[in-house]
Amino acid sequence: MAIKLGEIARAVNAELDGDPDCLISGAGTLKNATAGELSFFSNRRYFPLLGKTRASAVFLSAADREYCPSYKLIAADPYLAYVKALHLLYPEEGTRPGIHATAAIAENASIEPHSYIGANAVIGERARIGEHVYVGPGCVLEDDVVIENDSYLVANVTLCRGVQVGKRVRLHPGVVIGADGFGIANDEGRWLKIPQLGSVIINDDVEIGANTTVDRGALEDTVIGEGVKIDNQVQIGHNVIIGEHTAIAGCVAVAGSVHIGKRCMIGGLSALSGHIDVADDVIITGMTGVSNSIKEAGMYSSGIPATDNRLWRRNITRFKHLDELARRVKALEDKNQEQQ
Amino acid sequence: MAIKLGEIARAVNAELDGDPDCLISGAGTLKNATAGELSFFSNRRYFPLLGKTRASAVFLSAADREYCPSYKLIAADPYLAYVKALHLLYPEEGTRPGIHATAAIAENASIEPHSYIGANAVIGERARIGEHVYVGPGCVLEDDVVIENDSYLVANVTLCRGVQVGKRVRLHPGVVIGADGFGIANDEGRWLKIPQLGSVIINDDVEIGANTTVDRGALEDTVIGEGVKIDNQVQIGHNVIIGEHTAIAGCVAVAGSVHIGKRCMIGGLSALSGHIDVADDVIITGMTGVSNSIKEAGMYSSGIPATDNRLWRRNITRFKHLDELARRVKALEDKNQEQQ
Amino acid sequence: MAIKLGEIARAVNAELDGDPDCLISGAGTLKNATAGELSFFSNRRYFPLLGKTRASAVFLSAADREYCPSYKLIAADPYLAYVKALHLLYPEEGTRPGIHATAAIAENASIEPHSYIGANAVIGERARIGEHVYVGPGCVLEDDVVIENDSYLVANVTLCRGVQVGKRVRLHPGVVIGADGFGIANDEGRWLKIPQLGSVIINDDVEIGANTTVDRGALEDTVIGEGVKIDNQVQIGHNVIIGEHTAIAGCVAVAGSVHIGKRCMIGGLSALSGHIDVADDVIITGMTGVSNSIKEAGMYSSGIPATDNRLWRRNITRFKHLDELARRVKALEDKNQEQQ
Repeated sequence: MAIKLGEIARAVNAELDGDPDCLISGAGTLKNATAGELSFFSNRRYFPLLGKTRASAVFLSAADREYCPSYKLIAADPYLAYVKALHLLYPEEGTRPGIHATAAIAENASIEPHSYIGANAVIGERARIGEHVYVGPGCVLEDDVVIENDSYLVANVTLCRGVQVGKRVRLHPGVVIGADGFGIANDEGRWLKIPQLGSVIINDDVEIGANTTVDRGALEDTVIGEGVKIDNQVQIGHNVIIGEHTAIAGCVAVAGSVHIGKRCMIGGLSALSGHIDVADDVIITGMTGVSNSIKEAGMYSSGIPATDNRLWRRNITRFKHLDELARRVKALEDKNQEQQ
Repeated sequence: MAIKLGEIARAVNAELDGDPDCLISGAGTLKNATAGELSFFSNRRYFPLLGKTRASAVFLSAADREYCPSYKLIAADPYLAYVKALHLLYPEEGTRPGIHATAAIAENASIEPHSYIGANAVIGERARIGEHVYVGPGCVLEDDVVIENDSYLVANVTLCRGVQVGKRVRLHPGVVIGADGFGIANDEGRWLKIPQLGSVIINDDVEIGANTTVDRGALEDTVIGEGVKIDNQVQIGHNVIIGEHTAIAGCVAVAGSVHIGKRCMIGGLSALSGHIDVADDVIITGMTGVSNSIKEAGMYSSGIPATDNRLWRRNITRFKHLDELARRVKALEDKNQEQQ
Repeated sequence: MAIKLGEIARAVNAELDGDPDCLISGAGTLKNATAGELSFFSNRRYFPLLGKTRASAVFLSAADREYCPSYKLIAADPYLAYVKALHLLYPEEGTRPGIHATAAIAENASIEPHSYIGANAVIGERARIGEHVYVGPGCVLEDDVVIENDSYLVANVTLCRGVQVGKRVRLHPGVVIGADGFGIANDEGRWLKIPQLGSVIINDDVEIGANTTVDRGALEDTVIGEGVKIDNQVQIGHNVIIGEHTAIAGCVAVAGSVHIGKRCMIGGLSALSGHIDVADDVIITGMTGVSNSIKEAGMYSSGIPATDNRLWRRNITRFKHLDELARRVKALEDKNQEQQ
């Protein structure tokens, strides 16, 4: 689809410095975009590429306009404006309706028209699937699952019994929603399973990445708030509640009964211990271990950054004796005090 | 199912302080349980909720009885007693026997009566499936897999060739047992694959969480001991041996040839380096890196807890110079010594 | 298959100290190998087992020959020579051709002869599958996927639209290639999805472990270089480029737009932050957080090794005050300086 630059600028509310009739048919990186393509400049790491770009137009901040040889689309948040332009250039295809002959659908399941059930998908008893829903190949929906309108399950997604999925939810391949939580009680040396009686509620506009797992609640439900975005291979324990518009990067582990606030951002490979609360608007950087509740908005961290291996060896040896080192410093201070 | 309180108390060996004829039909949290429901109090975090609960009866310790407004079920381990009561209130449904028309089953596979094979499941050559086994929709069992009586594969589970699964084993969606271990040898700059010739043995009463992977052995078998419980997204490398009744929380990585003892508990997102041994009764807290064998029972840790990001920045800068700092302290001590 | 020891020695270029006519029919560990079996000694941890082995022949270094009671196969790299011998003893079976009756294959997909499509596999529109390819049970290939000759998808693998897979690639169960990257832009408190328009290119001789995910690029492609080996449960973000013959152990998280060089080795549960470059020949040890580009070959680390929990508690308490401790040391030094 080719769109005039002026039309794009208007639609995304950017100031155009260039030819409004220039036709744009796609987008590319600063490095590789060519004539007829848009690009954007927001990460300063890529500044050296800005002056050399062959893109027809570039989204950027007013402060950077002088460094750009192409037409300029100036916006307060150039990246956001660029993303909106992408949606114009690459509109989503609607779901083609139909039920593949190889899908196995329980007789008492209900599927609204205009929905699609892919090859070898399995739909359990009493499942209810709304309008314009896409259930991709190999997905398994156990009994009593509910999916509301316009949701999209790419492929090989598993929804366990009774899981509820809202509108415009997108679940990527390998996602498992509603498996039993890790509930065990020790009975004289053996583990006794704790029945997991709750379910999972995925609210509207949630997106969940490939191979991420969200466990069902023990007594009450696990709840993923509206607009939450979760990356790949994240683990969400039972009875977790995640507030609206929180974003969680890849490989994060959230233990059971954690309550995460609204609009939080959690960096990759972080871990949250069980039964803690995280306030609204908290940012947790990557590889951070959160073992206590966070009561105030702000940024929190604990990851240790890589160094040369030899230096690391010396430092971790010292780390093992850090308490002792601190005592020695205290002893020196005390002695110093005496001497005065 | 409604059960009299007196009957529950007797069955789980709790002392009842209340009306034995009170009918109980379910369970709930201290906060949300209502009349006719049981609850429990064991995590002190929730103490403020105890006095306000509307549950008909609460499992608790003798020491806490005075704080509870409802009928009391007093037990030495109130949580365990509560879990036993749950099993009475919510008995597991038996597996309905049958083979779904869309399942693809090799002719020479054997399936005992009273087992269930779900829609679009695939059963390979010479596979042997015991009695009352549930193989859910989309599961793939490669050739020569063996599953003993009363095991339950929820959905989309993959068992690779020759994997052996014991009795009453429960495998959640996305579990992969018996994929090739990560065995490679460097041959002049290219990686040469090491054939993975062993298998995996899952012993009785094991439960494995969603999207967890257990690799087949290189020469001998990977072995998961009786009663072991593994949470979601755990990675178990080739030739790992896990002792009976060990529990492993989510996202733990266990490298190849690790031997873990009996009754260990490993916290989430921990990692165990290859070829090490962990003694019986070891507790490893979350996000711990275990790079050497642990020879004695006890609790081990290495995770760094989150702090405010600005404080963290200052501390990790110092951490990079920790060895130097320790030398400076030593120099001060030496000087101090001289001066005396 | 039984092979004479002399023949094995010749084929793998090892010096034989023993009977060249001895028949070898398998391999085993130093501990459990018996007559007629090969073993190897390379990890010094297992030295005590060398003198007691009952293997007919053992691959080892010249320096260790005197400690071995069996026939000796002496090689500069005994482990590599042993692996080559394994390939002789356990040759891979060829793929039996055929298309299972339950596979759902789009009419305009093309599948070369001698390939195998397993039960309940799904092949999308215009997909092209080369010669001697194995697409195992339950695999889903979306539209426009390309797989070149001799590749092997074990089972329940998902390849999203347009993903390209080279020759002799091996993908283990639960692998997801080409799911949308985690691209979101904040639009007044809500997350706006960034269309993921690139694809994934998996080059020749790549192997990818169970439940690993490789996201499609945002604008350009994610590229996995020739001969790269990736273990289980690794997450590769969008637009990552991995150089040839790099090996990545289990549970590693690679954020978006990371460029990893050739011949790198990355230890388990490490994390690489977005938009960084890692030079060729870099070794990153397990549980390391890499937040800045690594410009030189070498070994890098940041993991903290486990200690006794009580010692750890004391040390992390001190770690929270490390910056302050360093200032106190500086103050002591300054005072010391004054006094002289």
